[in-house]
Amino acid sequence: MFEYFDYAASTPISDIVLERMQPWLQHNFSNPSAAHSYGKKAYDAIEGARAIIADKIGAMPSEIIFTSGASEANNLAIKGIAFKYIEQKGHIITSSIEHKCILNCCAFLEKIGFEVTYIKPNNDGLISIESVFEAIQPNTILISIHHVNNELGCIQPIADIGHIAFDNNILFHTDAAQSFCKLDIDVDTMNLDMFSLSGHKIFGPKGIGALYIRDSRESGLIPLIHGGGQELGLRGGTYPTPLIVGLGAAVENFPKTPNQLQYEFEKSIARYTFLRNGGTNVVPTIWNITFNNDDEVKRFTHNQSWLISQGSACNAMSNIPSHVLTSIGFDEEKARRTFRISLPPYHINDELS
Amino acid sequence: MFEYFDYAASTPISDIVLERMQPWLQHNFSNPSAAHSYGKKAYDAIEGARAIIADKIGAMPSEIIFTSGASEANNLAIKGIAFKYIEQKGHIITSSIEHKCILNCCAFLEKIGFEVTYIKPNNDGLISIESVFEAIQPNTILISIHHVNNELGCIQPIADIGHIAFDNNILFHTDAAQSFCKLDIDVDTMNLDMFSLSGHKIFGPKGIGALYIRDSRESGLIPLIHGGGQELGLRGGTYPTPLIVGLGAAVENFPKTPNQLQYEFEKSIARYTFLRNGGTNVVPTIWNITFNNDDEVKRFTHNQSWLISQGSACNAMSNIPSHVLTSIGFDEEKARRTFRISLPPYHINDELS
Repeated sequence: MFEYFDYAASTPISDIVLERMQPWLQHNFSNPSAAHSYGKKAYDAIEGARAIIADKIGAMPSEIIFTSGASEANNLAIKGIAFKYIEQKGHIITSSIEHKCILNCCAFLEKIGFEVTYIKPNNDGLISIESVFEAIQPNTILISIHHVNNELGCIQPIADIGHIAFDNNILFHTDAAQSFCKLDIDVDTMNLDMFSLSGHKIFGPKGIGALYIRDSRESGLIPLIHGGGQELGLRGGTYPTPLIVGLGAAVENFPKTPNQLQYEFEKSIARYTFLRNGGTNVVPTIWNITFNNDDEVKRFTHNQSWLISQGSACNAMSNIPSHVLTSIGFDEEKARRTFRISLPPYHINDELS
Repeated sequence: MFEYFDYAASTPISDIVLERMQPWLQHNFSNPSAAHSYGKKAYDAIEGARAIIADKIGAMPSEIIFTSGASEANNLAIKGIAFKYIEQKGHIITSSIEHKCILNCCAFLEKIGFEVTYIKPNNDGLISIESVFEAIQPNTILISIHHVNNELGCIQPIADIGHIAFDNNILFHTDAAQSFCKLDIDVDTMNLDMFSLSGHKIFGPKGIGALYIRDSRESGLIPLIHGGGQELGLRGGTYPTPLIVGLGAAVENFPKTPNQLQYEFEKSIARYTFLRNGGTNVVPTIWNITFNNDDEVKRFTHNQSWLISQGSACNAMSNIPSHVLTSIGFDEEKARRTFRISLPPYHINDELS
């Protein structure tokens, strides 16, 4: 029997979330944009979920735009701002260890005339606020730095980066797919202009996420998916009521304490010799570890029938070290001895402060 | 008790579809991109669904790209081709009665330098092949005409338009959200280069759809959602396994015969005096009708507790006549007497031929 330790890649839908989704799958399946009473009920359920998410981060409900997931939210944020400046173009600051969807977005924008600075992290995977400050140009339109790294688990200083962005009048976006609900996020104290979140990383359904957009109505963001006027015209497509209701329920019912697996894992892993990567400011639910030698890797894989990852799921099919490990200076040999083990997520912020 | 007659806006998830989705909601929730055995099982389930859809339309599985729905698929098709020609720009042919997501896409492209011709339909809502032919310019890069109109139910001559496009070496896309599974579609005999489909219009889940892309690998299409390499690099984001499996199951189990509601509706509606819009070549499951006078409207709304639409769901919240009714020459007064009644969909092609 395998033990699943890949929760940073995806989580199951929790019982309570599935229960809340149920009525919207078959019983009331109306298009929430329909003018009749059934449509209105579905619309109200969606607005309920929107309010839950807004409350969680100190935002207005109108600032939450539902998407198909964090990848779409990241694309909407970055291209949405870039296309606003499609004539004059501009400069974007990001890091070399963002999720591939952000790096590929930026590579596309470079092809069509934008400039991008990819900040290198230190050996722990941390982006320094100095390096962000130094990267600023007169034509910088956006800074996008993730909150928690999906492979290393390290926490970036996004409140400090937010302040730099604010002081320099530059928009700041963070990919919070790995931190939303796990760490406390307040869009005002952190000076976030946009942030992306995902349902299936927090015991919600796959296929749903959201982008927080400060003053969404006045943001001038260009939609990624033009549509029939849904989401203030910022994201088209029929509202997937069950998924949105599920996302709201996942936020409301996110675990407040560690799962029993966390303790079992910590006991088991102590039997091996390894180095944990990501420095001291890491979330307790993502362990990126490099075993001391090949024999130790063999002993581990022989003894533990764990479903884990080398790198993130998106990089899993590739034989080369992930761009994150390369960025923190790992060679192929060291990357081969490195694994990401991820535990069921819970609200961990209080432990850290 | 209300009777729901708004199936063109959305359908429920059928029992068999929900049953097939179930194992992927909580039991195997792995990220299908993960390299471990659980991830592989989810990936195989996705490839199974992809093969079902490909088989249905005479395509290769690699030509089916999953999206969050038909709106995203339409955006991917149109902007995906447009961005391929972002330097030199180009001309797009569409119609004035497309879904709003296509019209809004095109309006955006016009703003950044593309040319668009919006073909007007005749009074039945039909796009003539002559008007498409006449609209062709030397710089035309794409023709996008929908298959079945979502408000009128009329069937466009897409096989003929496909031939014109093929003869003139222009890509042809069709929005088949209202026709997929209901009418037979063969991508080769119809000369379709791309077509968009939706899950929640065919008793599948909301939040899933697909774009067929001929020779997807060589299409040069620019992704709408850049991501971690999923879907041949053409669409990023974690695969929503339950939704994709549900879409496959919906295609496999699509009803072959009319629902009992169809007969009840036809009996009831015969008691009123009205004109049915959309001409003679309409699907039997979408009835767009204009009552003869205001008294007849009153009699109808008083007697029938039906959940129906004026225009499509996306236009429902607006007080002005829909762009479709305006395009076929309706004034406000006539539009006010006009309703769309839509029945449970089924495979109707044999009836028509």
